[in-house]
Amino acid sequence: MTVPVSGMAKILALHGPNLNLLGHREPHIYGSDTLDDINSRLREQCAAAGHEFDALQSNSEAALIDRIQLARVDGTAFMLVNFGGFTHTSIAIRDAILAAGAPFIEVHLSNLFSREPYRHKSYFSDIAAGCVFGLGAQGYELALQAACRKLAN
Amino acid sequence: MTVPVSGMAKILALHGPNLNLLGHREPHIYGSDTLDDINSRLREQCAAAGHEFDALQSNSEAALIDRIQLARVDGTAFMLVNFGGFTHTSIAIRDAILAAGAPFIEVHLSNLFSREPYRHKSYFSDIAAGCVFGLGAQGYELALQAACRKLAN
Amino acid sequence: MTVPVSGMAKILALHGPNLNLLGHREPHIYGSDTLDDINSRLREQCAAAGHEFDALQSNSEAALIDRIQLARVDGTAFMLVNFGGFTHTSIAIRDAILAAGAPFIEVHLSNLFSREPYRHKSYFSDIAAGCVFGLGAQGYELALQAACRKLAN
Amino acid sequence: MTVPVSGMAKILALHGPNLNLLGHREPHIYGSDTLDDINSRLREQCAAAGHEFDALQSNSEAALIDRIQLARVDGTAFMLVNFGGFTHTSIAIRDAILAAGAPFIEVHLSNLFSREPYRHKSYFSDIAAGCVFGLGAQGYELALQAACRKLAN
Amino acid sequence: MTVPVSGMAKILALHGPNLNLLGHREPHIYGSDTLDDINSRLREQCAAAGHEFDALQSNSEAALIDRIQLARVDGTAFMLVNFGGFTHTSIAIRDAILAAGAPFIEVHLSNLFSREPYRHKSYFSDIAAGCVFGLGAQGYELALQAACRKLAN
Amino acid sequence: MTVPVSGMAKILALHGPNLNLLGHREPHIYGSDTLDDINSRLREQCAAAGHEFDALQSNSEAALIDRIQLARVDGTAFMLVNFGGFTHTSIAIRDAILAAGAPFIEVHLSNLFSREPYRHKSYFSDIAAGCVFGLGAQGYELALQAACRKLAN
Amino acid sequence: MTVPVSGMAKILALHGPNLNLLGHREPHIYGSDTLDDINSRLREQCAAAGHEFDALQSNSEAALIDRIQLARVDGTAFMLVNFGGFTHTSIAIRDAILAAGAPFIEVHLSNLFSREPYRHKSYFSDIAAGCVFGLGAQGYELALQAACRKLAN
Amino acid sequence: MTVPVSGMAKILALHGPNLNLLGHREPHIYGSDTLDDINSRLREQCAAAGHEFDALQSNSEAALIDRIQLARVDGTAFMLVNFGGFTHTSIAIRDAILAAGAPFIEVHLSNLFSREPYRHKSYFSDIAAGCVFGLGAQGYELALQAACRKLAN
Amino acid sequence: MTVPVSGMAKILALHGPNLNLLGHREPHIYGSDTLDDINSRLREQCAAAGHEFDALQSNSEAALIDRIQLARVDGTAFMLVNFGGFTHTSIAIRDAILAAGAPFIEVHLSNLFSREPYRHKSYFSDIAAGCVFGLGAQGYELALQAACRKLAN
Amino acid sequence: MTVPVSGMAKILALHGPNLNLLGHREPHIYGSDTLDDINSRLREQCAAAGHEFDALQSNSEAALIDRIQLARVDGTAFMLVNFGGFTHTSIAIRDAILAAGAPFIEVHLSNLFSREPYRHKSYFSDIAAGCVFGLGAQGYELALQAACRKLAN
Amino acid sequence: MTVPVSGMAKILALHGPNLNLLGHREPHIYGSDTLDDINSRLREQCAAAGHEFDALQSNSEAALIDRIQLARVDGTAFMLVNFGGFTHTSIAIRDAILAAGAPFIEVHLSNLFSREPYRHKSYFSDIAAGCVFGLGAQGYELALQAACRKLAN
Amino acid sequence: MTVPVSGMAKILALHGPNLNLLGHREPHIYGSDTLDDINSRLREQCAAAGHEFDALQSNSEAALIDRIQLARVDGTAFMLVNFGGFTHTSIAIRDAILAAGAPFIEVHLSNLFSREPYRHKSYFSDIAAGCVFGLGAQGYELALQAACRKLAN
Repeated sequence: MTVPVSGMAKILALHGPNLNLLGHREPHIYGSDTLDDINSRLREQCAAAGHEFDALQSNSEAALIDRIQLARVDGTAFMLVNFGGFTHTSIAIRDAILAAGAPFIEVHLSNLFSREPYRHKSYFSDIAAGCVFGLGAQGYELALQAACRKLAN
Repeated sequence: MTVPVSGMAKILALHGPNLNLLGHREPHIYGSDTLDDINSRLREQCAAAGHEFDALQSNSEAALIDRIQLARVDGTAFMLVNFGGFTHTSIAIRDAILAAGAPFIEVHLSNLFSREPYRHKSYFSDIAAGCVFGLGAQGYELALQAACRKLAN
Repeated sequence: MTVPVSGMAKILALHGPNLNLLGHREPHIYGSDTLDDINSRLREQCAAAGHEFDALQSNSEAALIDRIQLARVDGTAFMLVNFGGFTHTSIAIRDAILAAGAPFIEVHLSNLFSREPYRHKSYFSDIAAGCVFGLGAQGYELALQAACRKLAN
Repeated sequence: MTVPVSGMAKILALHGPNLNLLGHREPHIYGSDTLDDINSRLREQCAAAGHEFDALQSNSEAALIDRIQLARVDGTAFMLVNFGGFTHTSIAIRDAILAAGAPFIEVHLSNLFSREPYRHKSYFSDIAAGCVFGLGAQGYELALQAACRKLAN
Repeated sequence: MTVPVSGMAKILALHGPNLNLLGHREPHIYGSDTLDDINSRLREQCAAAGHEFDALQSNSEAALIDRIQLARVDGTAFMLVNFGGFTHTSIAIRDAILAAGAPFIEVHLSNLFSREPYRHKSYFSDIAAGCVFGLGAQGYELALQAACRKLAN
Repeated sequence: MTVPVSGMAKILALHGPNLNLLGHREPHIYGSDTLDDINSRLREQCAAAGHEFDALQSNSEAALIDRIQLARVDGTAFMLVNFGGFTHTSIAIRDAILAAGAPFIEVHLSNLFSREPYRHKSYFSDIAAGCVFGLGAQGYELALQAACRKLAN
Repeated sequence: MTVPVSGMAKILALHGPNLNLLGHREPHIYGSDTLDDINSRLREQCAAAGHEFDALQSNSEAALIDRIQLARVDGTAFMLVNFGGFTHTSIAIRDAILAAGAPFIEVHLSNLFSREPYRHKSYFSDIAAGCVFGLGAQGYELALQAACRKLAN
Repeated sequence: MTVPVSGMAKILALHGPNLNLLGHREPHIYGSDTLDDINSRLREQCAAAGHEFDALQSNSEAALIDRIQLARVDGTAFMLVNFGGFTHTSIAIRDAILAAGAPFIEVHLSNLFSREPYRHKSYFSDIAAGCVFGLGAQGYELALQAACRKLAN
Repeated sequence: MTVPVSGMAKILALHGPNLNLLGHREPHIYGSDTLDDINSRLREQCAAAGHEFDALQSNSEAALIDRIQLARVDGTAFMLVNFGGFTHTSIAIRDAILAAGAPFIEVHLSNLFSREPYRHKSYFSDIAAGCVFGLGAQGYELALQAACRKLAN
Repeated sequence: MTVPVSGMAKILALHGPNLNLLGHREPHIYGSDTLDDINSRLREQCAAAGHEFDALQSNSEAALIDRIQLARVDGTAFMLVNFGGFTHTSIAIRDAILAAGAPFIEVHLSNLFSREPYRHKSYFSDIAAGCVFGLGAQGYELALQAACRKLAN
Repeated sequence: MTVPVSGMAKILALHGPNLNLLGHREPHIYGSDTLDDINSRLREQCAAAGHEFDALQSNSEAALIDRIQLARVDGTAFMLVNFGGFTHTSIAIRDAILAAGAPFIEVHLSNLFSREPYRHKSYFSDIAAGCVFGLGAQGYELALQAACRKLAN
Repeated sequence: MTVPVSGMAKILALHGPNLNLLGHREPHIYGSDTLDDINSRLREQCAAAGHEFDALQSNSEAALIDRIQLARVDGTAFMLVNFGGFTHTSIAIRDAILAAGAPFIEVHLSNLFSREPYRHKSYFSDIAAGCVFGLGAQGYELALQAACRKLAN
């Protein structure tokens, strides 16, 4: 594993299927932030904290697994993940993330618990360092703050 | 209902049973922050944002219900709640908080989903504005940030 | 047990958590009757039937248990009970009411069966003399009529 | 729909299978009131309130559905229903009563909740205006009082 | 209740929906016996034992309930019942047969337990004096023998 | 079984409880087609294809069973069935239709799967040749087209 | 396999744990017939029908399996079985009886369905030729009659 | 969204994993129609109705999601979907189709309800405009007819 | 934590709701021992073993939690607990007792397993050092013997 | 049944499969007491109380049933039982012990409730006079004390 | 425990109920190998690897437990087990094998997962070193190869 | 289908998501064998047996389906499959493998039954020729031996 130098850490945001539609769809509900807006703010927040940032959105389970496997070896120190619909169905991503080893915080824009029953079960919550649900795009920023503090300890 | 003047809002933190033990027990796990430390930081954070802060910890379900009923009429605009063991059992607190009407964020120090199955069900998550789980004492601060932004909108 | 004289009976109404908010909240739904209004009408109805009336509302499970234990020995002959949120969770109140021995009718203002699933199960319905659900404040009066007839037989 | 004149309303009582045996069987349990006695008292109570009363008992699911369909168009304003064993099994009667549209109160002579588990589920409770269970023949009278008040509002 | 004289008892066979097709359908499976053949043999067997026999087949739940209600008052001492598809769904027939009071043996031509899961639950088995399943048309004769011995004791 | 001559087949439509209300109730939802309108169109469609058509609507489970038993022997070659509320409860109709032997397509005007959970289970879907749900009155016409093609093969 | 000569068949009765207590315990419930009485009558009944009879009672699951394995090769043509408490737990006996191949009727003295829920499931009912439950000691005789008729066909 | 001119609508057929094998495998069961045959007929049917047709088959969940996301913005007015094995597992496709907003009819060649239990649950049925199951390749044509009528209204 | 000197240990008995009624109610069932009698005997037994004894009965969940929290710091070495109806519902007491850290034995006067199903689940059994159920008031004495031996090891 | 003379009672200890390994395996967990040690202490304790003692350990379900059947007739007045792995599976032993009639206390060395879920269900707890779980070898001695007091009453 | 000398290990094969029938029953399914044939090949395979081999088949749960207990002390280093019908029911054998401590591989001739649901649950799979299912008699040889390699490491 | 010549068969190994990490991660647990090592050994083993070998690892469900569809037509005679996390979720792969028709053995490196409950259910076990679980990399070799023997028969 590539070890980052002197306090700087690599932080990776992973966005699952349909999250590329963010901001283009029902802005009165989800806000007008696009995924690019969110990633930009996270990148700035990382830079301010002296960390490196990378992000991937994909509708493909395989692409997400490939990226997580890469995270095993590219020195990623923390992940922020929102696997969208794969949250409730993908044991393969769970296996990849367990193998990656880096701690992660699970973020969901909406509050899963006020939605359909099949969204109440996540394959990631029980192995996450923490969960931030229902706080919209701001949820990512809050999760990143928590990640930064954990990396600082 | 008493209406707060000019942007200032009353924010109430509610801490359920056994949370008074925080900081006195297993500091290597829960950190050395006491509940007083947490409340102090939240009060400062509120002051900085121009809001008023109040907090109650109680081992008594009735005392928590009484306080929530008071929040209906004292102008409380937002709540941060961690009902400890009552999270999973108290329909009476749920009824009180539904009557109070003010939005709230549910905070838990530990990640409920990596604990016993009977902790996976909360009577509050589905009616919360958002959930912040497993991020320790910092979780309260992040929840307060989200609350402040929601109040500002 | 204190035995009431000549046909007169003590009748006790027990109101659980949040019922003190009655009339102050959403009057278009629950009507403008306060709990005091309801108790007053029940007291008059009792007086007209030659019975004694007492009532307690509490948000405290312990206070309700204490009052039920008192009913064991103060000659209470019948109870009208609405335990609010405790209806679905309190085995301790169930035990107290089983020990008290006096028959009771369970009243709920709203129809539990058209609400959330966790409200469909009551710890009291199976041991009640009868159930009156969904008929609003009038439900107490109807239950009291039934109680009076039972006491007269 | 035929509209009743000046405050008068048509009220219909529906009695399901085996209720024709009332009063003829185990009078020490169910009392000596026959179904005719009950209907007579309800008719008088209606007359006193200025309402019209009709009743049907049938062991036939189809006959009950036919009568409920008639109620859709004959101006029936309220129903008191006790569908006996069909309470727990007949989606077809539920559909008919939903189509009829008139509000109804569900009455059962005995307390269903202290009986066999398969009697705990009713296909009618969740769509009823209210429920009166376990108060014997008097339960019909109390339900009729509640119906009259609702019609007066 | 009409009391039969001197050892003679009335025995009633009840056949539910679709049993009128017996013998006309798949004789290589169900045999070529029609329901009339079966009833004839049962009538002879009753006569030989000095008992009276009656039988009803109906596709109508109401007709079966009516006949069972009649059995309450016409001196029927024992019943042989096969309610076909109603076996698994009719609480109303169960209520009627409980009210009738006469003991009964439940007969099924085929072995319910080697058929679909929804046929494994009967609303009658737990209140039957006995069960004879899977022995074809002979099952009725065996059940009648058992009935005769029970009546003789 | 009466064998139809030269390509002509008898086709039977069976409509269960409450379907007689079609067109009279909530036309903005169910359309203004009555059951007579639907049957007329099906009859024409059959005539055009050289087939004979018959239909029955009944609120009586027994009447439906009787008609299905008749279909066993009157040469009915295909059925279109919508058993309304009996869809989810009647094992007796299932038994009758299994005995009838003729293939059938199950039609429902609304989409059962977007309605209450107790409507998701049908006692007929697993033995149907096909299912057409949620396409309104047109669903019958489409099912009849499929029936015609199957009869032609 | 030893083939029996000219119509004669070997019939085996198997009695499971605690059935050796029959007649010695609660004769007012189970009757005063001992297991020896029952076996004697079955032997006579077999002799009269020109069949050979054998029986085994054992509290040992292994002994019952051994005897069933023997039945595979000693020409046993039919079995009457009552495995007592093993009815609900022994897959090993089920395997043995499936290997033996001979048809069997399952007999229980009491009606399993009116007893504890864990007695409602039998590992034998679904593979039995038939079931006779709740008819006491006579149940064996009736089952033997059915066996004889099946052997004669 | 691109709005189609003058009554013409874009209709999209989506075929999930393994449906490319159609016609090449077990023609005695599934018929000899290939997926190309089916698409050709649908294209003709669309042309005749003045509509535009497009189709995609893919074994890749991501490719299907991508195509559905495209349908959000390319003016697709209706979809015919058969997601094969993804029907029962893909919440991500469900999310995409909900975002796409265009109504769709769910088609399955075989009758899911007569197959394995894990095929009885679809993530699409409850949000479909209608369902056509078990009618083979003709099911697509019938669904397209229904789509055309809906587009015409 | 206050450390007890030289072999002496503090032992605490906790009695939950309704146990204050002991001896006053149904003495033919529960015996005539009051809770005071039981506590007195336990105090003597402790004294004889050189240990200190304290006890609390309360109907209040909060009071019990407060006392358990005190036990964390007052040197309590062992607890005997019977939380009455809270046994089955209070996660908050479970949390308190886990925080207290002292080992405990769970005592119930009656055998929970021969009572209602909702009493079969205890939130304390799985974390108790041992369980003594159904042995009446003597159960406390036996549990105290076991506690003393454990403290001596 | 042999009646014991003057206050003396026969007490039987039954030890199920694998309990013969006690003391030979993992003494740091189970202690160094062998089953012989335990039986010796129980015999002395019985002698001191004027009672007779017998014990059986067996890995054979049949041997345990045989011994329990013997207890029915040899005057056994009380049993201490630990059926090891049979606790959770043997309905046959349950039947034997119900037939034996003598009261018994169920003992387990370890606390079943802190072990695997399949050990939480016992076929004996609901019919036991009492339960002593998790108190090691001392549990037998405590159970014997309770037995002696019950025999003295 | 007897320690085997110099690389040689004792390997024990345990065969449960009905496996003695192997080769004598349905050879077209199970092959013509008898259990003796299998044991012989395993013995040769062991000899070739320098190991000692022993085997036991029994229909008796107790005999299997006794043999496993012996394995604790006779130096058995590895076991190959196929407990037949006991696989799904015997906690007592599970306890014995856990006490024995030697690693084992679970073998089944047929593939349990394509058989009845009650065969899908094994009390041994979760504690086995590995599982070989559905590969017939060869499965034992493969399991022995794996055992030898594990012993060699 | 391409038919292989003279005894030679094509054997295909399919490795699902994350199995490409083998040997690079936790070698003390999974061994230091990489997937290449395993494939090499399998290729040699095939060559020795005169068979052709091919292998595919992919994190993509679609890629695996595509390869299985190819196996339908390229003459593949046997498959060894380990679908990793897809084992428990992919009905689409199951459908593909059912269409492919070639027999296969399911291999897992670890013992699924000693892992999380959601890994106990495989969509492949019930249709596999056999299962080899928990024997590490050697499991593939053993499965290949079994495949070779089956191909030889």
